[in-house]
Amino acid sequence: MKALATALSTTVLLIAMTDTHAQQATPSSVPGYAYGHASLAPAPYTLADLKALQASMLFGDDDVKALRQSKAILADQTDAILDVWYGFVAATPELVHFFSDTRTGKPDAAYLEAVRKRFALWILDTADARFDQRWLDWQHEIGLRHNRARKNRTDGAQSVAQVNFRYIPALTIPITTTLKPFLAKKGASAADVEKMHAAWVKAVLLQSILWSQPYIKDGQF
Amino acid sequence: MKALATALSTTVLLIAMTDTHAQQATPSSVPGYAYGHASLAPAPYTLADLKALQASMLFGDDDVKALRQSKAILADQTDAILDVWYGFVAATPELVHFFSDTRTGKPDAAYLEAVRKRFALWILDTADARFDQRWLDWQHEIGLRHNRARKNRTDGAQSVAQVNFRYIPALTIPITTTLKPFLAKKGASAADVEKMHAAWVKAVLLQSILWSQPYIKDGQF
Repeated sequence: MKALATALSTTVLLIAMTDTHAQQATPSSVPGYAYGHASLAPAPYTLADLKALQASMLFGDDDVKALRQSKAILADQTDAILDVWYGFVAATPELVHFFSDTRTGKPDAAYLEAVRKRFALWILDTADARFDQRWLDWQHEIGLRHNRARKNRTDGAQSVAQVNFRYIPALTIPITTTLKPFLAKKGASAADVEKMHAAWVKAVLLQSILWSQPYIKDGQF
Repeated sequence: MKALATALSTTVLLIAMTDTHAQQATPSSVPGYAYGHASLAPAPYTLADLKALQASMLFGDDDVKALRQSKAILADQTDAILDVWYGFVAATPELVHFFSDTRTGKPDAAYLEAVRKRFALWILDTADARFDQRWLDWQHEIGLRHNRARKNRTDGAQSVAQVNFRYIPALTIPITTTLKPFLAKKGASAADVEKMHAAWVKAVLLQSILWSQPYIKDGQF
């Protein structure tokens, strides 16, 4: 019951927060967004590693094309998508835990909001992914920010020390399942929606695997 | 070119091997198959952990129902499915590497064949998964057998020391993508095929996450 009460109060909080998102975020206006920044460390995996991983995931040119098609479709829907995703997180105690303030045990609204702004950009970055070294280095940084190596630092949050590994690949499912209706909202054919959805499943799983690298024992990634 | 030649020779090898699969394997006839064996160590994750993970993956009763529906559909197709999967592994140098004999660098046919027999049972076990303690303990054992902790031991293979972590969640994609046409071969409605496919994506990703546990740094799973 306590978990449910927490989830419900978070839902109210998140619904209240959505008023603040009328304007589209741009990369330069979002604190902590560092895709392409020279300050990022080089990823510990190479472009050749990425290519091999993509081959093992049947990720090809058709998927890149489908992701690009999705970008225009999703561009003005990121806020609505994030309402659904944040609603799901708020309703799932195991997930909202990762946004909790360790001093109060309650969700940290400022932390949730800071992450949300970067999450909106991430949607478009995923649709537009270039799979180059800059992209790899950013994936590495995102992974570190989930891991105890660097969680909470970007936003100065007083939250739990890590997002446990197991929830990272797992989130491929709710993210891509709830995205599908949004892919269908702009008149694309059913076949194209299927292709875009399949490409998104691959793209999110691929990223979640790269984000997992800081959790993996030396030499086993 | 060398990689291609290796892949092609493996394909020939695998095609030759398929003659030996006329009979359905049964659990008791398959060496190394240990689902439910008292000898298995208890999994390091609990049923409560599993339940939370399933919730985060939107895995519910409908998915269990869809998996059960798939069992009857797949039961007499496991050999044909494995021909496709093994063909894909053989054509992907990064994957066939994990079955290579370290003394020759070539695929180890006996090792491939031993794994294949358990793989056939795994298809039906996934469709019939009970998500109980016995099932959890078996997932743990399967994970160990991919990790350097225990790879090669079951079959006495002289192969590479580990399947690298990143290929484990990645295989969710080729396994479930190539499975879909088989789900459609017995007259299920298009909607039911979609549901079964979605349940399989969740079920395979869920297992791959559990199998990843031995790769994760202490306290970060």
